[in-house]
Amino acid sequence: MGGDTGPEVVIPGAALCAERHPELRFLLVGDRSRVAPLVERYPRLKQRAEIIHTDVFVTMDAKPSQALRQGRGKSSMWLAIDAVRTGQADAAVSAGNTGALMAMARFVLKTLPGISRPAIAAMWPTMRSESVVLDVGATIGADASQLVEFAVMGEAMARCLLGLEKPTVGLLNVGVEEIKGQEQVKEAGRILRDSKLPIEYMGFVEGDDIGKGTVDVVVTEGFTGNIALKAAEGTAKQLSTYLRLCLQRTLMSKIGAFLAQGAFRALKDRMDPRKHNGGVFLGLNGVVVKSHGGTDALGFATAIDVTLEIVRNDLVNKIKTDVELMTGLLKQPEAPAEASL
Amino acid sequence: MGGDTGPEVVIPGAALCAERHPELRFLLVGDRSRVAPLVERYPRLKQRAEIIHTDVFVTMDAKPSQALRQGRGKSSMWLAIDAVRTGQADAAVSAGNTGALMAMARFVLKTLPGISRPAIAAMWPTMRSESVVLDVGATIGADASQLVEFAVMGEAMARCLLGLEKPTVGLLNVGVEEIKGQEQVKEAGRILRDSKLPIEYMGFVEGDDIGKGTVDVVVTEGFTGNIALKAAEGTAKQLSTYLRLCLQRTLMSKIGAFLAQGAFRALKDRMDPRKHNGGVFLGLNGVVVKSHGGTDALGFATAIDVTLEIVRNDLVNKIKTDVELMTGLLKQPEAPAEASL
Repeated sequence: MGGDTGPEVVIPGAALCAERHPELRFLLVGDRSRVAPLVERYPRLKQRAEIIHTDVFVTMDAKPSQALRQGRGKSSMWLAIDAVRTGQADAAVSAGNTGALMAMARFVLKTLPGISRPAIAAMWPTMRSESVVLDVGATIGADASQLVEFAVMGEAMARCLLGLEKPTVGLLNVGVEEIKGQEQVKEAGRILRDSKLPIEYMGFVEGDDIGKGTVDVVVTEGFTGNIALKAAEGTAKQLSTYLRLCLQRTLMSKIGAFLAQGAFRALKDRMDPRKHNGGVFLGLNGVVVKSHGGTDALGFATAIDVTLEIVRNDLVNKIKTDVELMTGLLKQPEAPAEASL
Repeated sequence: MGGDTGPEVVIPGAALCAERHPELRFLLVGDRSRVAPLVERYPRLKQRAEIIHTDVFVTMDAKPSQALRQGRGKSSMWLAIDAVRTGQADAAVSAGNTGALMAMARFVLKTLPGISRPAIAAMWPTMRSESVVLDVGATIGADASQLVEFAVMGEAMARCLLGLEKPTVGLLNVGVEEIKGQEQVKEAGRILRDSKLPIEYMGFVEGDDIGKGTVDVVVTEGFTGNIALKAAEGTAKQLSTYLRLCLQRTLMSKIGAFLAQGAFRALKDRMDPRKHNGGVFLGLNGVVVKSHGGTDALGFATAIDVTLEIVRNDLVNKIKTDVELMTGLLKQPEAPAEASL
């Protein structure tokens, strides 16, 4: 029921995925009177979908605490997440209110042992391919050990979604020199550099390194990550608008644009935000993926595709194992250091 | 002597401005043996330039503290800033090490009364025109009252450089709702909303609002501002590279690109980073402007143009007056509030 449009986007999106992945089964949680007629239009989806009815929904502007209170046990968002907890579903995908979704997911699924805070990871298109960027808005601020947790989780996600054996990891900072930046970022850098964590840590990266694809995983706290992501999205939109305006100025450029339309289609395709949709909630006992609220069916289908990859690659268990290893490794070095004082 | 190239960019840049603004006079601080031969090539500049010789330079990778220690009283950077202090120059422009430049500028010029921290402001091209964004990297972190100071200084700069009588001001945040975001940002929002400051405060803006031009002045602390700026620059570069690659793929698109070259030139011109060059140091007792270290003569000339506008519009005194007003206004409301407890 979430997102700017609700079932009118979610159901066609699910229908696209039902075509792409015949093995998928869907639990559609929401108002049956709105959902059922839409499902009727897609026979493939209908065969493999079950509707879980509720008429309680979390609104897009609800505060997380308010959503938890009012939507607990009965809202479509809650029921979808709870299906993951009970094992009825392998994952939940929602285009709804991000803050409410995260609050409910934390409450229902709980964070993994050793993780103090979940993060939201985004796939960011780069000059090389794609990178994992996290946290893009789960929480504001992060201390050094939380940033290290983000690094561990983001690295596992890059292995799952980018098919890399040894993804490279960088910490987002205002300079690449070790003396620069927030204290917690510098401290996280020291831990990642000096620990025996099996992570290919490359040091600090700057804002323009994200788009360059300097590293496969970019780690930052949620305030900066969210603003960087949206600033980049804004710039992409700005440039494509300029381009369109410039091409319409003269007859000659209109003809040129017509001849080069294949190129523009390729460019549009490459930068299409609908192909990079899906904020992955990391650090929870289960898979929850957030779709952009303003996307269309194609975009929502991408979010489902991402979810499927995560489930197939067993990301939650990979993170669990990696975090256990991390907890063990980061506890050890402290002892000799203290002993030597 | 600063920047990736040094006098080979700075001198031709100054020469461009000597043509544009016949009233300008230049003090060129640096190594005479490198500067003088370059000046010889530009008769207009030569007529109006004086070389202040020194062979001590701050390197691009020097730490600010180290630059202060080693460059004090004798480096080209120091002498340029000191010329502002003594009134020999109206402003200093440098393409050198940002951290060192800020440290020296603070040390030599001092901050204005009522300002706890200077900021670096950038002109950001938007869908509407341009916006002032600050702080883009002078310091990391800012409390509520420092964010309010940034708002006051940025607003004065927008009046000077954008020619607006009542520029609009927004605080950069992860959501537009009043409940979201960092505590200090929320508190700054309350102060800007409730105080009688003569500022057109529009509330919170998000990362994608910067490029949209939702407000004329975007206020944030230096860590996030720096990363947002560079993320946007990176995205712009990424998109123009994609566009070039896509247009070269087929003969048809090459012909199209040839016909539409006027449009691409217009686009390039509009997004040209050299036309938006110049990080303005705000909150100091004097004008210091930082040019991108990697720019060319045209870009350096833009930084000088920005500097000239600032001096002509007497930005330092405008900020001084506004900050005095702010200090007065923000002290008053506290008394009755406490009295009513």
